[in-house]
Amino acid sequence: MGNALPVTRAGNFAEWYQAVVRAADLAETSPVRGCMVIKPWGWGIWERIQQDLDRRFKETGHENCYFPLFIPLGFIAKEAEHVDGFAKEMAVVTHHRLKTIDGKLQVDPDAALEEPLIVRPTSETIIGDAFQRWIHSYRDLPLLINQWANVVRWEMRPRLFLRTTEFLWQEGHTAHVDEADAMAETHRMLEVYRTFAESVLAMPVIAGEKSENERFPGAVSTWSIEAMMQDGKALQSGTSHYLGTHFAEAQNIRYQSAEGVETLCHTTSWGVSTRLIGGVIMTHGDDDGLRLPPAIAPHQIVVVPIVRGKPEDAAVLAYAESLVAELRALSALGAPVRAHLDAKPAKPVDKRWDWVRRGAPVIIEVGGRDADGGQVTFLRRDDLVRDDGKANFHALPRAEFIAAAAPLLDSIQTGLLTEARKRRDDLLVDGIESVAGLGDYFGPDSEDADTAVKGWARVGWSRPTGEGLAAVEAALKPFALTIRNAPLDQPADPGRCVFTGDKAVEQILISRAY
Amino acid sequence: MGNALPVTRAGNFAEWYQAVVRAADLAETSPVRGCMVIKPWGWGIWERIQQDLDRRFKETGHENCYFPLFIPLGFIAKEAEHVDGFAKEMAVVTHHRLKTIDGKLQVDPDAALEEPLIVRPTSETIIGDAFQRWIHSYRDLPLLINQWANVVRWEMRPRLFLRTTEFLWQEGHTAHVDEADAMAETHRMLEVYRTFAESVLAMPVIAGEKSENERFPGAVSTWSIEAMMQDGKALQSGTSHYLGTHFAEAQNIRYQSAEGVETLCHTTSWGVSTRLIGGVIMTHGDDDGLRLPPAIAPHQIVVVPIVRGKPEDAAVLAYAESLVAELRALSALGAPVRAHLDAKPAKPVDKRWDWVRRGAPVIIEVGGRDADGGQVTFLRRDDLVRDDGKANFHALPRAEFIAAAAPLLDSIQTGLLTEARKRRDDLLVDGIESVAGLGDYFGPDSEDADTAVKGWARVGWSRPTGEGLAAVEAALKPFALTIRNAPLDQPADPGRCVFTGDKAVEQILISRAY
Repeated sequence: MGNALPVTRAGNFAEWYQAVVRAADLAETSPVRGCMVIKPWGWGIWERIQQDLDRRFKETGHENCYFPLFIPLGFIAKEAEHVDGFAKEMAVVTHHRLKTIDGKLQVDPDAALEEPLIVRPTSETIIGDAFQRWIHSYRDLPLLINQWANVVRWEMRPRLFLRTTEFLWQEGHTAHVDEADAMAETHRMLEVYRTFAESVLAMPVIAGEKSENERFPGAVSTWSIEAMMQDGKALQSGTSHYLGTHFAEAQNIRYQSAEGVETLCHTTSWGVSTRLIGGVIMTHGDDDGLRLPPAIAPHQIVVVPIVRGKPEDAAVLAYAESLVAELRALSALGAPVRAHLDAKPAKPVDKRWDWVRRGAPVIIEVGGRDADGGQVTFLRRDDLVRDDGKANFHALPRAEFIAAAAPLLDSIQTGLLTEARKRRDDLLVDGIESVAGLGDYFGPDSEDADTAVKGWARVGWSRPTGEGLAAVEAALKPFALTIRNAPLDQPADPGRCVFTGDKAVEQILISRAY
Repeated sequence: MGNALPVTRAGNFAEWYQAVVRAADLAETSPVRGCMVIKPWGWGIWERIQQDLDRRFKETGHENCYFPLFIPLGFIAKEAEHVDGFAKEMAVVTHHRLKTIDGKLQVDPDAALEEPLIVRPTSETIIGDAFQRWIHSYRDLPLLINQWANVVRWEMRPRLFLRTTEFLWQEGHTAHVDEADAMAETHRMLEVYRTFAESVLAMPVIAGEKSENERFPGAVSTWSIEAMMQDGKALQSGTSHYLGTHFAEAQNIRYQSAEGVETLCHTTSWGVSTRLIGGVIMTHGDDDGLRLPPAIAPHQIVVVPIVRGKPEDAAVLAYAESLVAELRALSALGAPVRAHLDAKPAKPVDKRWDWVRRGAPVIIEVGGRDADGGQVTFLRRDDLVRDDGKANFHALPRAEFIAAAAPLLDSIQTGLLTEARKRRDDLLVDGIESVAGLGDYFGPDSEDADTAVKGWARVGWSRPTGEGLAAVEAALKPFALTIRNAPLDQPADPGRCVFTGDKAVEQILISRAY
């Protein structure tokens, strides 16, 4: 059996990624540069991500709001005064009307806005403006808000899900009485992301603190979860920022303390985006397409009836329908089983491969013999092919299959995490002691570079700042390496600093990244 | 007992509406002209509207997608060529970067877009472009797509929820083999809206066809649900359009029929928006604030413990907590009961009135005597005040209240619909036979006009088109009257045309409207 995709991961990982997005029918590029169309199968994954995260946010006391799409230029200008390293690639609305001039529809020059509006790249400023109005007393704190929204950041080199001009995300914004409470929130949400990534996306991640040069502009500290893709590169998959009083100062977010003192709030923000779908693809996909963790699969079990335009078809269809109904009455991974009958007019073998490429966790094919014998014949997407290269079909009596269905989905969910974690751990390299050693291991950044999967180096460093950190960045650049984060879990002895040979103060992860 | 709002419906309905939005903490204006901030209680209502409608869309075979926020100007220009009466008030993105010039952050003149982008006012053109790529054969039809999105239409006179520059909605877009299938879809979704409005929002509506002058630009026919607000005005609350082959022609949306013939698709679109929340307010609100149908109330039952900083508080709090837990284990209106413990540090009486203004259907107050005696003391928001003007508290033994809770929520849901339907039916006026009669009944449109609630006139007409229809519009204008729709339910004899005295072909509804 060949593979269902025209390109393999080992052959060309970037092209393989595009091929999976296309073959799994997740999304496509749109006529608007940098913007994507998310198709039903991709959207179904995002719906499940939203629902699960939303529940976790509510369980940790957050409420949803919705803030305007547009931000007045003046708000952004004020933030820019307070914040260095502020990105300026934004979509700017300058007019509010079109007009037919000389027979051609164009921007009406008489409809210029007095103040241009920015399409939100993130909402700190507009939400801070509301916080400033909403917060009066310590009794109003903590204020714990989240919003699900689209945001726009002009992208010159877009890639579906990973980097698009418009993307969908959630952004949490919170205000607290002091640093301790705000830092607790920052860590709480980082942990929500970590748990979610591992238990729902089956994507192992390392949570830790970003280095100073990688902080969100204006943040006191930025924390991330980093996942390893199958090409060994890191994908920053979620961030949680402690903003100190910087934004509160710029926006006058104050409260009256119990003692009657006007005090600045400490704020946080945190977010994950549709980029997570790119992470799922590059963590679990194989050369036959996508493999979806059951927790986020829009259909967990797909039933394909093998009909041939013959009288026996009715029995096959009835059997398939009753099987779907029986599966839907079951519960797996804490929710009703999502079973789907694929009765589309297409060849059964084409349907099978379509669901393989889309990554449906379990595919059942119902033929006349199954219907007659009360049997269920199925494929596991995580164990598709036998040693002899044939499709690895299993068969069970119907009652046995029904009893096994929920544990089967459980075991696929767990199996994908275990597999990804083992790969990640195998590619976490310790013991490199110098920049030269990093260079030898990763090789130079060039077109014809060695494409062997290198993973991440875990090294000690002395946590330099300012110019010292700039020198470190410069030393890593020729190898296209970046500092990912300083993991929360640190060894008792972090060893020597890979840059200076001095005693290290902590360990960090260094790798190539998306 | 006075009222909880500073203004009454009879006093000034427009100001009363604003007061409810504020007092129920639903939303507020933002620093961006015409855009609103939706606050947690308002957003909670929208979440429930979304969840319920989304389920109905999926049950009728639709799949969700997501299309870009931006539409190239060229797409809009092409549509404008095909469609008359096309609105041109849109937000136009012309640049993609800001730059600090002379120490001031401004639009970078070197970052002008080659082609301006329009922030979507609706997505027919960008979705049609995808349909044109996705549809090849009759086997791909019907194509049934929905998206939940924000859209922007420049509003000069914004009103929270009713008319805002940015609003949230869903837009369904479908393609079919022929008129019959597309018309069936148009009616199916109209009926989904009608059923949803009545059974979930408890908002009685009349479904019917809009007159030619009120059609969506480019539609062959437009259908609406119209609800009567408490000031007698109509609120168009949802529309469903049969677009014929107009958009398919402009965008080349074709399929190969079973006979191998290239054929134009027939398309539809349909939508409802955050405007529905305005409809709920003006249908159910009273002079004490909002009254929410339990099906969309973020909290259906609010439990307020009466604590006084004394040792007995612990028992009161424990009783309140166990009551909330027991209520949450119940099911009402097809879902788990949403019970909420309000343990905020505030005076119990203030909390009571806060929940009254927010429209929580049932408010329980737990005092020491309730905890000791195993009793539940509660208010129904739909029956708040006794004849003597005092708060109408009921008390039941706890077990009896638990048994009664789900039927209680059911009865509030039904009661609100019955009340609104009776008011609507009482204000549906038949028998007016001339434009003069309409003028006499409704009075002129002027500042010092009679503010008595007039409702809707149900009259016959001969369904004029073109100039005849323009004359009808002109005749109604001095009274600020508009044609709402021609109801689906028509009498055998529609009577005489109110405009010409000729025999009518159908009845229509005429009223003032939002």
